[in-house]
Amino acid sequence: MTAQPGPARRRELHLNAFLKPPGEFLAAWRHPNAAADAGVNIRHVIELARTAERARFDAVFFADLVGVPFADQEVLSRVSVVNDSFEPTTLIAALATATSRIGLIATASTTYNEPYHLARTFASLDHISGGRAGWNLVTSLSDAEARNFGLDRHVDHELRYERAAEFFAVVTGLWDSFDDDAFHHDQMSGIYFDETKLHRLDHRGKHFAVTGPLNIARPPQGRPVIVQAGSSDRGRALAASVADVVFTQHADLAGAQAFYADLKATARAAGRDPDHVVVLPGLSTIVGRTLDEAEDRFDRLTSLLDPRVALADLAYWLGGVDLAAHPLDGPLPDLPPSNQSQSAQRAIVERARAGGLTIRQLAQQRARDVRTVVGTPETIADHIQEWFEGRGADGFNVIFPYLPDTLDDFATLVIPELRRRGLFRTEYTGRTLRDNLGLPRPPSRWALP
Amino acid sequence: MTAQPGPARRRELHLNAFLKPPGEFLAAWRHPNAAADAGVNIRHVIELARTAERARFDAVFFADLVGVPFADQEVLSRVSVVNDSFEPTTLIAALATATSRIGLIATASTTYNEPYHLARTFASLDHISGGRAGWNLVTSLSDAEARNFGLDRHVDHELRYERAAEFFAVVTGLWDSFDDDAFHHDQMSGIYFDETKLHRLDHRGKHFAVTGPLNIARPPQGRPVIVQAGSSDRGRALAASVADVVFTQHADLAGAQAFYADLKATARAAGRDPDHVVVLPGLSTIVGRTLDEAEDRFDRLTSLLDPRVALADLAYWLGGVDLAAHPLDGPLPDLPPSNQSQSAQRAIVERARAGGLTIRQLAQQRARDVRTVVGTPETIADHIQEWFEGRGADGFNVIFPYLPDTLDDFATLVIPELRRRGLFRTEYTGRTLRDNLGLPRPPSRWALP
Ligand SMILES: Cc1cc2nc3c(=O)[nH]c(=O)nc-3n(C[C@H](O)[C@H](O)[C@H](O)COP(=O)(O)O)c2cc1C
Ligand SMILES: Cc1cc2nc3c(=O)[nH]c(=O)nc-3n(C[C@H](O)[C@H](O)[C@H](O)COP(=O)(O)O)c2cc1C
Repeated sequence: MTAQPGPARRRELHLNAFLKPPGEFLAAWRHPNAAADAGVNIRHVIELARTAERARFDAVFFADLVGVPFADQEVLSRVSVVNDSFEPTTLIAALATATSRIGLIATASTTYNEPYHLARTFASLDHISGGRAGWNLVTSLSDAEARNFGLDRHVDHELRYERAAEFFAVVTGLWDSFDDDAFHHDQMSGIYFDETKLHRLDHRGKHFAVTGPLNIARPPQGRPVIVQAGSSDRGRALAASVADVVFTQHADLAGAQAFYADLKATARAAGRDPDHVVVLPGLSTIVGRTLDEAEDRFDRLTSLLDPRVALADLAYWLGGVDLAAHPLDGPLPDLPPSNQSQSAQRAIVERARAGGLTIRQLAQQRARDVRTVVGTPETIADHIQEWFEGRGADGFNVIFPYLPDTLDDFATLVIPELRRRGLFRTEYTGRTLRDNLGLPRPPSRWALP
Repeated sequence: MTAQPGPARRRELHLNAFLKPPGEFLAAWRHPNAAADAGVNIRHVIELARTAERARFDAVFFADLVGVPFADQEVLSRVSVVNDSFEPTTLIAALATATSRIGLIATASTTYNEPYHLARTFASLDHISGGRAGWNLVTSLSDAEARNFGLDRHVDHELRYERAAEFFAVVTGLWDSFDDDAFHHDQMSGIYFDETKLHRLDHRGKHFAVTGPLNIARPPQGRPVIVQAGSSDRGRALAASVADVVFTQHADLAGAQAFYADLKATARAAGRDPDHVVVLPGLSTIVGRTLDEAEDRFDRLTSLLDPRVALADLAYWLGGVDLAAHPLDGPLPDLPPSNQSQSAQRAIVERARAGGLTIRQLAQQRARDVRTVVGTPETIADHIQEWFEGRGADGFNVIFPYLPDTLDDFATLVIPELRRRGLFRTEYTGRTLRDNLGLPRPPSRWALP
């Protein structure tokens, strides 16, 4: 696809609601206002999605792991989400008929799925939701996931990004099986579709052999919205070439600006319109009417986290390291490159080195994560405005430490402040998620230019 | 599991609505009252499910193929369902939030899926629907499906039933990862679940190696309802050992009675309570206020079918035979055993031999299928009563030749007649699909007896 520069349009701020009921914070479920069973409480999750829709978020998003992250049962038994949550594609299908305008994004792995199933699932979701579906393409993280699919170890980082690229080509090829205008439904002649508008894929590659066609019409959006959140070199390259939306994490604006500029330049170099790659850094917020109130809320939340869980989580994001083999009050040892998330490992190591932190301090500090902006509606809106206008972000992947409170607060306190500043929509203007994100509908690979 | 004989209870008639929008008949989409785009029209499918729910059907059911059945594009372009339909697990998730009491059954293949994904998907569906989910376990049918998953030919019949049995053991093992009372959600102590109530599967078998645990609580029904529709020797054996509901097809009552008696006996021999295997023969109906009206409707429908499509469908169900190599006005040649559905092939061959039919006659006769009961509400209720009371059936898998008409007719004409005879419920009595089917909730394999 070549870049199609459209008429200049005002940049719009986009907000994704990263829902992980009962919250992103590992001890969120212990908060007295949280629904402890939120992971499998459909009424509760519907309410969260409707709150996000009333606030006019672009989309709600659900992460996914195909296994549990912690081997230590004492640690595992103290966390909620990873043990007991809906599978995301079935969840967003259920939300599709319980909402009407908001986008619905589900995570699915290219490492442990078959492209034919995945193409069907997301095409079906896009039809069910009337063009509101998105796919967060991940390559999965840990050996524990691999062991649910016949392998002893997780597929190598390099190899799984290679597989991801081929997987994506197959999936998009299958979505184009039927031209947009293939189905005539001509009851008189008995011709259901025009056979010249059907394209078998006949893909034979290194990882997949898939004949096709897909047994469903092209998705209403042409392609569901593609989200990518890998930030290693391979991850960025994939994002620049295929992602509509990029999730990322940055500790400061300078880092975000560098990433933003780099990604847009790489997308342009790949022949894409950089405005069609929406960069959304993560933003976790705790809102109070005063700064003191917000700080109190944050303290109360972070006090709920068991230090063993904090340590296990640190070990996990460092790539599955056995930290017990090292003194807790000593420095982080030199580590082999992670086969999970290389970018996450790098960010943590940089932070430890920069702050001269011991392992224990690092685990504690991560629990009170620097990414969490604790403030009043005004200071949080300031932060959003600064990053948006400073081109560190096209909007944010808004992460909710505990639910429903931090979503309610964001919706009723921060978003009105953003609107007062003319930064955020009051109504949905588009019909599909692509429309609301300012993204064009991709033509089929078979469409004449 | 050993049989748990409960108190004697009145036998209840069960009805499953086999929905295949716009209808089971291959030319249904050409009927003027059909919605030609029904396969991907969510509002339409929701209406069908709500109609079935108002009529108090036990469940709605969706079939599935992971590919298109016909290689000939001229034929393919004249049929609807197989080209353009929702993927069933996402569809029933969407229906879960658009209905409240009816069961929701989706088909999924054990041949081209991973058990970890499938266990999660159906556990999630059962939680989303509050215990209304069912899984129709199939082994898939044709080479065309195999070619979407890296293979040239469909897995051998014997081998895929072997895989299905191991697949089922893994899936049910994963559903039992957490005991029913594992989750304490104890906010004070910080203990989310009791670690003694988590069971890793650690399965290592011929086809699968799956460590587990599943990352979701045990399904509300313990297990979603298991449906099986294979009728070969291997298919029956699997059904007798694992199925809660068995779909089957019989041309006459004597055949149905023989199957029914055999299956119940085999289930009993396997240590199961035969009342806990619900046998539902297919029943396709065309209702008229008079017999003439019903016959007219049927003629009008069958006249819509292109002979090329009828012939391709015959070849498909014979196991993918090239009928073009044989004179149409000659007899059916001797055929190698089908690697698709052995039972379907056998039924067709028997019919051809019994009637002394040519290939052309066979294709035409199948279009006007003997399984379709064309009649008035009274004659159709007679048929149902005879089969039910004669122990050829515990109820029916009601197949709708074209939608929405034949469902509306069944709901408003036949079901009231069944109620007048005291044969069918007026209200749902149970909370889950198992309740409504009169099936117990299976204990976990880890539960003490
Ligand atoms: C906001 C965000 C959300 C993510 N969600 C998931 C997820 O749900 N499942 C998953 O397996 N990985 C998830 N990841 C991980 C990445 O998508 C990526 O696969 C991983 O970081 C490894 O790639 P990298 O080495 O390129 O960073 C997420 C990352 C970020 C920043
Ligand atoms: C009512 C009914 C519905 C069926 N639905 C499906 C289906 O949706 N997908 C599929 O692959 N096979 C389906 N089948 C086929 C069987 O489940 C089974 O896999 C096939 O008949 C091969 O097994 P057999 O040789 O044991 O008969 C269905 C069969 C019947 C009778």
